[in-house]
Amino acid sequence: MCHPSNRHFSRNRTDPQMSYFEKIPAVKYEGPQSTNPLAFRHYDKSKKILGKTLEQHLRLAVCYWHTFVWQGNDIFGQPVFDRPWHRAGDPIERAHLKADAAFEFFSKLGTPYYTFHDTDVAPEGDSIKEYVNNFKRLTDVLQKKQSETGVKLLWGTANLFSHKRYMGGAATNPNPEVFAYAATQVFHALSATHELGGENYVLWGGREGYETLLNTDLRREREQIARFLKMVVDHKHKIGFKGALLIEPKPQEPTKHQYDYDVATVHGFLKQFGLEKEIQVNIEANHATLAGHSFHHEIATALALDVFGSIDANRGDPQNGWDTDQFPNSAEELTLVIYELTKAGGFKTGGFNFDSKVRRQSIDPEDLFYGHIGAIDLLAVSVERAAKMIENDRLQAFKDDRYKGWNGDLGKKILSGDLSLEALRDLAVDKQINPPHVSGRQEYLEGVVNQAVHG
Amino acid sequence: MCHPSNRHFSRNRTDPQMSYFEKIPAVKYEGPQSTNPLAFRHYDKSKKILGKTLEQHLRLAVCYWHTFVWQGNDIFGQPVFDRPWHRAGDPIERAHLKADAAFEFFSKLGTPYYTFHDTDVAPEGDSIKEYVNNFKRLTDVLQKKQSETGVKLLWGTANLFSHKRYMGGAATNPNPEVFAYAATQVFHALSATHELGGENYVLWGGREGYETLLNTDLRREREQIARFLKMVVDHKHKIGFKGALLIEPKPQEPTKHQYDYDVATVHGFLKQFGLEKEIQVNIEANHATLAGHSFHHEIATALALDVFGSIDANRGDPQNGWDTDQFPNSAEELTLVIYELTKAGGFKTGGFNFDSKVRRQSIDPEDLFYGHIGAIDLLAVSVERAAKMIENDRLQAFKDDRYKGWNGDLGKKILSGDLSLEALRDLAVDKQINPPHVSGRQEYLEGVVNQAVHG
Amino acid sequence: MCHPSNRHFSRNRTDPQMSYFEKIPAVKYEGPQSTNPLAFRHYDKSKKILGKTLEQHLRLAVCYWHTFVWQGNDIFGQPVFDRPWHRAGDPIERAHLKADAAFEFFSKLGTPYYTFHDTDVAPEGDSIKEYVNNFKRLTDVLQKKQSETGVKLLWGTANLFSHKRYMGGAATNPNPEVFAYAATQVFHALSATHELGGENYVLWGGREGYETLLNTDLRREREQIARFLKMVVDHKHKIGFKGALLIEPKPQEPTKHQYDYDVATVHGFLKQFGLEKEIQVNIEANHATLAGHSFHHEIATALALDVFGSIDANRGDPQNGWDTDQFPNSAEELTLVIYELTKAGGFKTGGFNFDSKVRRQSIDPEDLFYGHIGAIDLLAVSVERAAKMIENDRLQAFKDDRYKGWNGDLGKKILSGDLSLEALRDLAVDKQINPPHVSGRQEYLEGVVNQAVHG
Amino acid sequence: MCHPSNRHFSRNRTDPQMSYFEKIPAVKYEGPQSTNPLAFRHYDKSKKILGKTLEQHLRLAVCYWHTFVWQGNDIFGQPVFDRPWHRAGDPIERAHLKADAAFEFFSKLGTPYYTFHDTDVAPEGDSIKEYVNNFKRLTDVLQKKQSETGVKLLWGTANLFSHKRYMGGAATNPNPEVFAYAATQVFHALSATHELGGENYVLWGGREGYETLLNTDLRREREQIARFLKMVVDHKHKIGFKGALLIEPKPQEPTKHQYDYDVATVHGFLKQFGLEKEIQVNIEANHATLAGHSFHHEIATALALDVFGSIDANRGDPQNGWDTDQFPNSAEELTLVIYELTKAGGFKTGGFNFDSKVRRQSIDPEDLFYGHIGAIDLLAVSVERAAKMIENDRLQAFKDDRYKGWNGDLGKKILSGDLSLEALRDLAVDKQINPPHVSGRQEYLEGVVNQAVHG
Repeated sequence: MCHPSNRHFSRNRTDPQMSYFEKIPAVKYEGPQSTNPLAFRHYDKSKKILGKTLEQHLRLAVCYWHTFVWQGNDIFGQPVFDRPWHRAGDPIERAHLKADAAFEFFSKLGTPYYTFHDTDVAPEGDSIKEYVNNFKRLTDVLQKKQSETGVKLLWGTANLFSHKRYMGGAATNPNPEVFAYAATQVFHALSATHELGGENYVLWGGREGYETLLNTDLRREREQIARFLKMVVDHKHKIGFKGALLIEPKPQEPTKHQYDYDVATVHGFLKQFGLEKEIQVNIEANHATLAGHSFHHEIATALALDVFGSIDANRGDPQNGWDTDQFPNSAEELTLVIYELTKAGGFKTGGFNFDSKVRRQSIDPEDLFYGHIGAIDLLAVSVERAAKMIENDRLQAFKDDRYKGWNGDLGKKILSGDLSLEALRDLAVDKQINPPHVSGRQEYLEGVVNQAVHG
Repeated sequence: MCHPSNRHFSRNRTDPQMSYFEKIPAVKYEGPQSTNPLAFRHYDKSKKILGKTLEQHLRLAVCYWHTFVWQGNDIFGQPVFDRPWHRAGDPIERAHLKADAAFEFFSKLGTPYYTFHDTDVAPEGDSIKEYVNNFKRLTDVLQKKQSETGVKLLWGTANLFSHKRYMGGAATNPNPEVFAYAATQVFHALSATHELGGENYVLWGGREGYETLLNTDLRREREQIARFLKMVVDHKHKIGFKGALLIEPKPQEPTKHQYDYDVATVHGFLKQFGLEKEIQVNIEANHATLAGHSFHHEIATALALDVFGSIDANRGDPQNGWDTDQFPNSAEELTLVIYELTKAGGFKTGGFNFDSKVRRQSIDPEDLFYGHIGAIDLLAVSVERAAKMIENDRLQAFKDDRYKGWNGDLGKKILSGDLSLEALRDLAVDKQINPPHVSGRQEYLEGVVNQAVHG
Repeated sequence: MCHPSNRHFSRNRTDPQMSYFEKIPAVKYEGPQSTNPLAFRHYDKSKKILGKTLEQHLRLAVCYWHTFVWQGNDIFGQPVFDRPWHRAGDPIERAHLKADAAFEFFSKLGTPYYTFHDTDVAPEGDSIKEYVNNFKRLTDVLQKKQSETGVKLLWGTANLFSHKRYMGGAATNPNPEVFAYAATQVFHALSATHELGGENYVLWGGREGYETLLNTDLRREREQIARFLKMVVDHKHKIGFKGALLIEPKPQEPTKHQYDYDVATVHGFLKQFGLEKEIQVNIEANHATLAGHSFHHEIATALALDVFGSIDANRGDPQNGWDTDQFPNSAEELTLVIYELTKAGGFKTGGFNFDSKVRRQSIDPEDLFYGHIGAIDLLAVSVERAAKMIENDRLQAFKDDRYKGWNGDLGKKILSGDLSLEALRDLAVDKQINPPHVSGRQEYLEGVVNQAVHG
Repeated sequence: MCHPSNRHFSRNRTDPQMSYFEKIPAVKYEGPQSTNPLAFRHYDKSKKILGKTLEQHLRLAVCYWHTFVWQGNDIFGQPVFDRPWHRAGDPIERAHLKADAAFEFFSKLGTPYYTFHDTDVAPEGDSIKEYVNNFKRLTDVLQKKQSETGVKLLWGTANLFSHKRYMGGAATNPNPEVFAYAATQVFHALSATHELGGENYVLWGGREGYETLLNTDLRREREQIARFLKMVVDHKHKIGFKGALLIEPKPQEPTKHQYDYDVATVHGFLKQFGLEKEIQVNIEANHATLAGHSFHHEIATALALDVFGSIDANRGDPQNGWDTDQFPNSAEELTLVIYELTKAGGFKTGGFNFDSKVRRQSIDPEDLFYGHIGAIDLLAVSVERAAKMIENDRLQAFKDDRYKGWNGDLGKKILSGDLSLEALRDLAVDKQINPPHVSGRQEYLEGVVNQAVHG
């Protein structure tokens, strides 16, 4: 076997002091030549690039759900992961064990942030009161873990899609009681995020959409969710939460159609209800491609619309039509994303959150590390290469030249609003304009990018 | 051969008095049992359904471009249509012949409306002045033809995508001179539409998008097109044009990405620039499916967002990823579209425009008729079946029941805005709410629709 | 509420004599005007069309898995169905209860056939011996149920994809022990199918594909599965099973790529290993569309390649990229499928198996009936309309005319193989051939179909 | 402007001695640090890697059609390229000018091969005799150009899709006269390829498919094309052509469905008609993705099925559903393709043919160079990185370990064919097998690849 073979978790349920990942040492930077799959080859977190460390550029977060909650089931298959913290027993006890495992992992990996859903970290219980109590207890546990490890919360969120009550929507449910239940969860998840020093709060409307238009009132459901968001915005201000509120667009899955289809759709919705200053977007690469866009497009669009917030770092499979949530694997794609982002000033409150999961056959503890380490290294590579592009910004120079006419007389006059259609028409006909044809130089520009990415 | 075989055009260029479609009689309604492919079996235009005639429901239009301009070329193949009005000769003379053919066709088919681009009806010429003059001359011809035949203009538009100058965009071009040229065309096309009594004016931004983000400034290009649209809106009011301005969404093709991606994106754009009261959408079925939506979705969305204007009636091929512009062929789909539309009051200024073309192998004059007749009959069938759904509106009854909680105390209180997130949370926890699970009944509702559509 | 509201199962676990669906009467044919959603409006099973009853045309089967095994979970959501036979307790006892429910349902619905996987009907147990014993016990139960109700087995199959051991493939697994386990299951599932008088045996290779080419040896895995199929073919002959062996193509999901991608790919595989006389295909509509084909295409291709076997009746969602397994809902599509099939002689051993599931929100017992009844009625409608097409077969007449040149001298000479490329070239140049251009008449033919489907 | 600005062709029609690309010097290797976009940074053609020069590894070819025939039109737009050899005049004279331009380009670029369709290099003329004569004349011109420049022919082909006569198919046309015309073209194109020392002959059936099943007899059309291919195979042997015959799979476009859908489908077809030893495949990246596969998949499949021949090097746009034929732009993708190919021994007769075109806005002569140079450099980079993977072949080592069980007793016994299903079942049950679960290590393997590709 060409890789380490310590395939089992070191701890079992009855040894609470022991480590889960005992055989795996803390992940270190070893440089590009290392073939140790449990070391970073590029992510030297203190390395400064364009005035910031790699850690500051990337603001990496590990998510709770894929790595510590998911059991390896898929729609055609049973759970395959044998995680000690999933074994039978008291749900609260298991939640503690899961937190132990999670924070041990975060610490060994050396990523500064994590993210969670309320129901990832605490059992839902059998009633709304149990939910509140359980979540409170585990929030305290997370608080303690954060202090012990120094790991911080990038964002929290509430799971408004897994439970049966949400099968017909949460805020957009035909039943206002479900809206009230969802409001309760968001109230507590936002409070917990605030208490834990979270830097953002995310809303992903997994069931906010429809299965069939035959039973759906689109207009009404949009009003409902706008009302919901306004309540959340007001509450944020009331409690003094300074982080950003983020909506995560996705076009479909689990529903046939999701209202937060893509960045442009979310932006339109925010504008309609006057929320565009209050809410930004959390962009996921895989959601971008499911919506028929490139990841680069969604990032560039959010920046152009002034709603960029954070990134869920993963990718889809170009041949599969569902959310595969694979670890990012293309420096070619990520370099362009980081180029755009860095030129726009980089993350403010956001970061790269690994909303990524190992493949179902990757059942070993090491696989969790391999997935994250590989992706982190690729992000580090991409920062380096984006920096090369920015230092000698031939793309920007090209664009400046390409649009220079808009800084000239005619361009300025048009944009000023002083020219009527008729006046512009008269000007064009009088001058007998016949605009020259100019190359768009796409192949040249792709070559410029390739030189940065591939040397 | 199991169909009429008069395959040739009757007129050649040198017999200006003759008919192009001499062997094809005016299309009549013959009832469902007819097997005459040159007769309507369902479109009895005076038949009243829900208080309006079929003609009033459908407001059918034939387009100039696919039927009289396109020569049957595709991206891998040469022209295949042998139309007398395309033969070599003086461009102005050919434009006259084309108008003869078009209005003969409109009249024989018996559809009340037509639609055109400026460059469909008049040659572009070699300079902006020639463009202006040619278009003026042919507008007069159209005026005369309209008077003679009673055929009306549903909408006009300007072609801002075929000419080489537009290869990098029209209003979004990096060169403001191209913007000025586009403004000139729209000035004249809107004026011509106004003069010809057109009921709408359409803007399709075929090149308003990008081929690569590497050379594109999204923010700047959005500003440019917003400026363009504001000029058009102002001009419309200035000349007193009472028709609607319509944007036609399309996600891509010819560009990699088009800014008017889908209805929700256009709506967001209009909101951003304060144009949502001035501009509506012209929805094309094939563009809906290319954007990853159902046709039904785009119609329902436009109605819910109060931007519905008109329809380009065609369909794509579910297995092909480009705009096939086939004649509509599914009463199952159209019945739902017409159900939504009719319940919302039907068309105001819009109509069903056949932005549809015969397949490239359908080279005969009759094929132009078969395509339109088949589609018109299917639309008539769909009106009948939608009416059945409306007369006994089991879908609406189901929806009213499904959302009834929102008319109750809790629902009203939430929507009123009086409840804060915290107050709602307190209420939910105090009452220990545990919302019941209710079936969405999709299969039942699909059965209801099928009974209307298939008996 | 506009539909019956007896939403609960009548039986609970402790009343074994009671009916599960007590409030739902046996489904009867009531004619097209009925608005009873629990009656057939078109499926009058004894009605003769083209010399066969509707029952004989359709050979309908209900599947065990979607309707009696699935609990309403999806990849983002928990189980939502509250079926008495899923409640906690002894697995063997629950298997009995499930069989009670299934056969009560089959009987009330009045469909002649059912289908199952081994692990649908019997618990897998904790060892291979338990598997064998459990399956044997439940096979006896099914035998008894079949005798009591007259319901017959259309086909059986083995589940080689849900268990953890199959995560890396069954016959294509890198470990031959997994191949051996799969062989054991197929041995018993084929034996059970034989004992129960099943008319076919199906192989769906849900995990026979790859997640990544990086760890996959395509050539080797093809050899493995060919060996597997040869073993199954030999065993079939050995035990004297007279039914058909069927492979069910699917392009992907759960794997990234499945070897049995589509009908043409399966046919090529069968040819490569000399199995094309021994194995046919079971075509699923949703798998066709996931593979980029129309359902019609896959049926027509299987018939043209002489490998047509049976049909899994469902549909996908054109906007969603995964297997939605919805009930068939388009008479427009089904009429063409049944037209092709009926002209080719109809089913031999196959039938229409409802590999269809209610939507996740359709949680009530009635919803199971609504889904099946609606689909059955649509199939009945489609048989009627296909029969109209066949009785006056304008499509066939058109095709006969279109290809008639191939019955002429030149056509026959070419197909005979007597002409060399050079001789044909000489003939073409000597005759100076210049073939005429002939319309393909697609719009006319679509009109012919629409007249049959929509009147 | 940040790049060379000599935007015009140097030669006009009346100066036959002059160069078309006078201002562009022959492209040289300048090393990775060069920022000269008209130099190679990686393609040092004599550099040896794994025992072969880069030139021998890649066997690069430039195609005639995209670069010298296409005029920049797209389905929504007019021609935009102003190439001197397209200007009005005598068609034969223009064909000479085009050959001058093409061979000047090939020489300056320094690629060893080119490819063409018959109608790219010679005008079709108005009759079959003219076709024959024109093609003969221009074949002589190509012969002379090859001698003068040393540029060789990778493959020739016949265009059986652009002319109106082929709108309903070539070999699959309903009219045998069209088959005869196609046979004539292939006769001459194969002869010309043979005379010019071509190393392969390609068949792409652009119209060999259907627009609608309503007018199509699939079984008959398959027989026709099989007959056609047999004629071609016989003729090849008769004239002693030693090159390979290659079919190029494509799923659709221009037709709705093309019979040569993908590699597996073509392989099945070849097996059905006993042609699998005579014909191989020419794989195009963009056709792979249109068929729902990765490029890597199609290469690996062709190698596994022993039908690999050659490669059309381009890529599609992941967000666009048509053939964009862009220059290859991903070393991440190409490294894996070249890894597979090189391990299988590399090209025999095939090569990388640039079936790639500049974007429509790339109107300048330099753009033709930028596109090819960038792609060539990326291919060179990919060879280097694939070589790194092969030199320390961790993927192969992993696979050898993963499948090692098949070299053990049980594996061998199964594959030998000695074990019946029953015997294997008995063995499994007796041994109570319970196969262990083993990680597929996808993330680890992706990391291994990334280390090779990105350092």
